[in-house]
Amino acid sequence: MSVKVCIVGCGAIGSLFAAHLARLEDVEVHAYDVYQEHVRAINERGLRISGAADFTAHLHATSDASQIPCCGFGIVATKSTHTRPAIEQTKHIFGPTGAVCSVQNGVGNEEILAQHVQYVIRGTTFPAGHLIEPGHVGFDISGDTWMGPFEPTNTPYDLVEQLSALLNRSGMRVIPLKDARGAQWTKLIFNASTNPVGALTLLHHRAATRLSSTGMLFNDLIAEGEAVAKALGIELHGDPRALVEKGANAAGKHNASMLQDVLAKRQTEVDFMNGAIVEWGKKTGVPTPLNRAMWQLIKGLEHSWTDPA
Amino acid sequence: MSVKVCIVGCGAIGSLFAAHLARLEDVEVHAYDVYQEHVRAINERGLRISGAADFTAHLHATSDASQIPCCGFGIVATKSTHTRPAIEQTKHIFGPTGAVCSVQNGVGNEEILAQHVQYVIRGTTFPAGHLIEPGHVGFDISGDTWMGPFEPTNTPYDLVEQLSALLNRSGMRVIPLKDARGAQWTKLIFNASTNPVGALTLLHHRAATRLSSTGMLFNDLIAEGEAVAKALGIELHGDPRALVEKGANAAGKHNASMLQDVLAKRQTEVDFMNGAIVEWGKKTGVPTPLNRAMWQLIKGLEHSWTDPA
Repeated sequence: MSVKVCIVGCGAIGSLFAAHLARLEDVEVHAYDVYQEHVRAINERGLRISGAADFTAHLHATSDASQIPCCGFGIVATKSTHTRPAIEQTKHIFGPTGAVCSVQNGVGNEEILAQHVQYVIRGTTFPAGHLIEPGHVGFDISGDTWMGPFEPTNTPYDLVEQLSALLNRSGMRVIPLKDARGAQWTKLIFNASTNPVGALTLLHHRAATRLSSTGMLFNDLIAEGEAVAKALGIELHGDPRALVEKGANAAGKHNASMLQDVLAKRQTEVDFMNGAIVEWGKKTGVPTPLNRAMWQLIKGLEHSWTDPA
Repeated sequence: MSVKVCIVGCGAIGSLFAAHLARLEDVEVHAYDVYQEHVRAINERGLRISGAADFTAHLHATSDASQIPCCGFGIVATKSTHTRPAIEQTKHIFGPTGAVCSVQNGVGNEEILAQHVQYVIRGTTFPAGHLIEPGHVGFDISGDTWMGPFEPTNTPYDLVEQLSALLNRSGMRVIPLKDARGAQWTKLIFNASTNPVGALTLLHHRAATRLSSTGMLFNDLIAEGEAVAKALGIELHGDPRALVEKGANAAGKHNASMLQDVLAKRQTEVDFMNGAIVEWGKKTGVPTPLNRAMWQLIKGLEHSWTDPA
């Protein structure tokens, strides 16, 4: 009997998960995405992956969530700004026992998912990719994914292990953890430093890291995030500065996803990054003036698209 | 016997001073500017002002400082980023007794002038204008100018009063003060909040003031600047927040000068605004994390012009 998995949001990251899982004979993959040309291409020609792995996988894709059968697992990979409408459209798929894992940026997505489904898994993923054309995704950087139960939902750890096992068999490296907050906050703190600074200065990641003024700002933003994590009792999974440095040593120019959003005038994920650090800082009494300033500036920049100078 | 005045930097603000003074029969005005088309137009057709006042004045303009005779007074109105080369070109004009007044943005210009001329006057000016075409400047907003001796130069107060009297007779409103630091710091603190936020968010001034996120950031930046001024023993000349509000109530959309610089990819005056607040904060032991972050981001943005994303 095959396991059914629904990928909610089949962009670059969702496609990597979808295509890998679809290679397993005992897994049936359904992908939900609003981008109809991508959906049509997947159904007609399969989902092609190239780069860190090269293959084409066959799976079901649709923009109509009512077409998707009941699934035991979900993997949510939309932009954080689309989590709420995406889960509202798809929640019926997971029934009373399905477990849904967020592999999105920032923190706060699991809280939204838990308002709609029974079991939620906290995930943090490091692979990177980009859409080359409809039906074809570039697998730019392979990397690990960390998963653990989202604490308020009392999600059985067994479900985390089941999903991790499927993904590991499919070729995605997943580490199941009892407490996955450390990995998530390490990536959050990395993102909340590099993303707004890149978006506000229009600097690619290596330039922003190497320039002394912005490099110092990275460090000061990271220090605030670390103080909040500490106050929450979260032990970080490594040093966010190592992620900054790793990215700066990569070949070519890489633009932070928030810079890509800003250049395309798309709403950013700042509420789930700097906004979340500020909110948790308030709850724990830790001052976060620099993260608040980044949130304020990005909100201002988003506003300028409807009220230009 | 006529008084000779040299306007160093005859852009929008310099032109307002030059044209007003040139209406006085006992004043001979020489304007120095590197923009040759503007210089040529002034010499051929006079300098036309329209808006808050409408007239055409006749004066001498040149891009060759060696053509300018010895002058008793100078008014420096270049961008702060051009103060050093401008005074290096013109310092011979002022001889051993000339007094040179900065009416530029930010703080730090007087220090540069004092390395080259005997007497320096600290000025702060509120009129606004823009170049309509070569030889023609729009006088957008009339306003007061505050002048006082730049303390380290022991400039005789009598010189401040003489220059103020000339300008008041010409129609520019000038208030001479024994200590002009309060007016300068009030405008500095206003500029150091509204300028970088406008430049980073691409918001016009009213939008940035009214949007709650950026409006709050204005207030937090102002509070840091006020703390530094207090530590320096400077009594502010009014509330910088009133300047923010006054600007937001003006008709039409106004873009902060730093936003105009960023849109034109011109080096900004951030070193003389947020950079100066950070430096004086260090000297007085007052923390200025938000002003430092603004300085860091603007430096990053300037860097992106030579190393784009």
